[in-house]
Amino acid sequence: MKRRTFIKTSSISALSLGAFGLSGLENKHYQNYANLRVSEKRLVDRIAELAKFGIDEKRRGYRIAYSQGDIDGRAWFIDLMKKAGLNPQIDAAGNLIGKRKGKNAALRPIAFGSHIDMVPEGGNYDGTLGSLAALEVIEILNENKVTTDHPLEVIIFANEEGGTIGSMAMVGHLTADGLQQKSQIGLTQAEGIKAIGGNPDAISSVIRKKGDLKAFLELHIEQGGILEQENIEIGVVEGIVGIVHWEVTVEGFANHAGTTPMKLRKDALLAASKFITAVNEIALKIEGNHVATVGKIDAMPGAYNVIPGKVVLGLEIRDLSFEKIEMLFAEMEKQAVSIATETKTKISFERQANEVKPALTDKTLQQTIEKSAEALGLNTKYMQSGAGHDAQEIAMIAPVAMIFVPSVGGISHSPKEFTKSIDMANGANVLLQTILSVDKT
Amino acid sequence: MKRRTFIKTSSISALSLGAFGLSGLENKHYQNYANLRVSEKRLVDRIAELAKFGIDEKRRGYRIAYSQGDIDGRAWFIDLMKKAGLNPQIDAAGNLIGKRKGKNAALRPIAFGSHIDMVPEGGNYDGTLGSLAALEVIEILNENKVTTDHPLEVIIFANEEGGTIGSMAMVGHLTADGLQQKSQIGLTQAEGIKAIGGNPDAISSVIRKKGDLKAFLELHIEQGGILEQENIEIGVVEGIVGIVHWEVTVEGFANHAGTTPMKLRKDALLAASKFITAVNEIALKIEGNHVATVGKIDAMPGAYNVIPGKVVLGLEIRDLSFEKIEMLFAEMEKQAVSIATETKTKISFERQANEVKPALTDKTLQQTIEKSAEALGLNTKYMQSGAGHDAQEIAMIAPVAMIFVPSVGGISHSPKEFTKSIDMANGANVLLQTILSVDKT
Repeated sequence: MKRRTFIKTSSISALSLGAFGLSGLENKHYQNYANLRVSEKRLVDRIAELAKFGIDEKRRGYRIAYSQGDIDGRAWFIDLMKKAGLNPQIDAAGNLIGKRKGKNAALRPIAFGSHIDMVPEGGNYDGTLGSLAALEVIEILNENKVTTDHPLEVIIFANEEGGTIGSMAMVGHLTADGLQQKSQIGLTQAEGIKAIGGNPDAISSVIRKKGDLKAFLELHIEQGGILEQENIEIGVVEGIVGIVHWEVTVEGFANHAGTTPMKLRKDALLAASKFITAVNEIALKIEGNHVATVGKIDAMPGAYNVIPGKVVLGLEIRDLSFEKIEMLFAEMEKQAVSIATETKTKISFERQANEVKPALTDKTLQQTIEKSAEALGLNTKYMQSGAGHDAQEIAMIAPVAMIFVPSVGGISHSPKEFTKSIDMANGANVLLQTILSVDKT
Repeated sequence: MKRRTFIKTSSISALSLGAFGLSGLENKHYQNYANLRVSEKRLVDRIAELAKFGIDEKRRGYRIAYSQGDIDGRAWFIDLMKKAGLNPQIDAAGNLIGKRKGKNAALRPIAFGSHIDMVPEGGNYDGTLGSLAALEVIEILNENKVTTDHPLEVIIFANEEGGTIGSMAMVGHLTADGLQQKSQIGLTQAEGIKAIGGNPDAISSVIRKKGDLKAFLELHIEQGGILEQENIEIGVVEGIVGIVHWEVTVEGFANHAGTTPMKLRKDALLAASKFITAVNEIALKIEGNHVATVGKIDAMPGAYNVIPGKVVLGLEIRDLSFEKIEMLFAEMEKQAVSIATETKTKISFERQANEVKPALTDKTLQQTIEKSAEALGLNTKYMQSGAGHDAQEIAMIAPVAMIFVPSVGGISHSPKEFTKSIDMANGANVLLQTILSVDKT
């Protein structure tokens, strides 16, 4: 985790270390592998090129899953996969899968990748970095004529931002009901999957069984500000947080704002405000990496001259441990009781059905990432992922790991999302070296 | 203001006090007048009858200005005015005006009345009590063959709830622009005025000059809970509060709710919540009858998983003194500065153009109301009106006064709005006696 001076090596694809006096083919081979580096320029150029697909009339990114931008971006990506010899296939869920043979066909594949769809008004790094870095890994191996022992698979998942649809299908969790739900663009998931070349009627053909993959690795931007704040180059993800949503209803009494004295009010918005403040205080007071957010509020009837009689809030808590989420919520619920008494209101909670279970990454893979980063002269931090990722689904059938690189200002899901070129290259090099290490186990 | 035992006299229209041994025609006459009482039953029955006009499919009151319910209710009211010999006229603004001659045509008229339009899902007492009590006063005078010195005018103002349109027109404040604005029912004010028999092209014909009326008196339900809480029968209104609205914008930074640690957030909704709590604390801490309300809130983008980047609030402050409103706002603004610093957000205020200046009632009329109530054995309290009323407009051209009676539970602008029959009769009797007293000055 200590900070080392970074040596810029990204323009060198491979170094022969024969000059270092190492003897023996195996050793030399190993050292050659260890010195493989991605092309920072090619990676960065492709990030910029992909960003051109899916632009709305306001010049903002609009590569939402199943949109024309998504379809065009995928076509461009498929073309690159073909050029890299990956023989890309679209599976029934719309996932793009490219395969590269290993020396030993009996070994299970090492998979890696991410997604290229985006949220509305999203940024150019979320998902695209992991996707283009995966392709970059293949190209470097091609250029250096390296054949791994294990088969390799590049997977670009369909509709990650709209509910990790492609990876859910791959682990057998996309139900017939789920296929009929509307996607962000208005099509049902089934219609959207068809639009990108999948076949929703054969959705079960994409299911991978537990043990089918040796590992799944995903490089991603952090989407938070921790790495940048702490001057860390590589985040080793310990797990992806679980998420629970509650709809919070505050009931007071709507009354005339002019004629109801301050002391006689049952102001639902005042109670809601005290609760929002309490949520924040509890989240700050209790130690840990959890987050708690009230992101939605609706006050009724919603006029300057009426005391709000009812307020509905959206409360979200995330943590790597479900027990921690429950504990935080219990504290908030307790506070709500005293706020309700104080404000003469009623506060009730409805837990939403869409909860996401935490997913832990594989400890051995975490260590491999850490060692690969250290060998590259990069400092690391073990951390959680506050955002959901396809790796979260794949964790149900394979050992998974994630590599994080810094997001400038911690900004994500925004046109202001940005990751420095050097950080992208660092992440891709760690991905490459981790794959090579895993291949040797 | 002391509480006296109330003697139910409402079923007695007039008492001859000759038996009390008073001598002289004038004295007897005066005593006869002092003992005139409205018919509680007739008043209450008519309140119930008027409530039948304008009922929506959910059986809720829908006598919004210019609606069919309003038109039907007005037709019923016009019929009653005719029967009471008031020769009702609809002026160009749609106000219903009924006149009763006095002994001295050279004297200026004493006017009284209210409105019969209602808010959507409103109650059956707001406006209707003052309107039907005005009619009741006329009928009692008719039945007892009393002719006042001054001419009397019953005025039922058009569209009070949609912006005191009729009374604004009467004081010359309804502009051509104002006539083109949409009313609650979707028609422009001009279209609405036409629908109820007015003539928007001749709107200036309704203007009364300062000094045209001797006085304007309005009986109204309190719409707040003070009289009921303090066991007071009659509120003597000192003035109608001024109202200022501010649009408050809180700017933080919208970010991923999963990946942004608690300490790195610029949560606009958290800042807004602290501000809403501060508004309430300041309003409670500072002495006085002012009220401060945040009744509107909009948090953007408004999703469970995004930290709100921007929140817009509606802040309203009401008081009888503009200086007090300014002082309260200055305190809130000061608090906003420290909340903004603490939460790393920006809070700005935009004062809205629609502010309403406070209107003070006439001190002599206040005292006349108090004396009339005391003579009726009713206890009184000097208080402000937190709601706007037509009297507020008329105050610009004439001495005005308002009589309040208790609202059960302080509820108004709601189907739950209720005032007891005895309280309505008390108010109508105070109105009657006040008119008779004013007539003698």
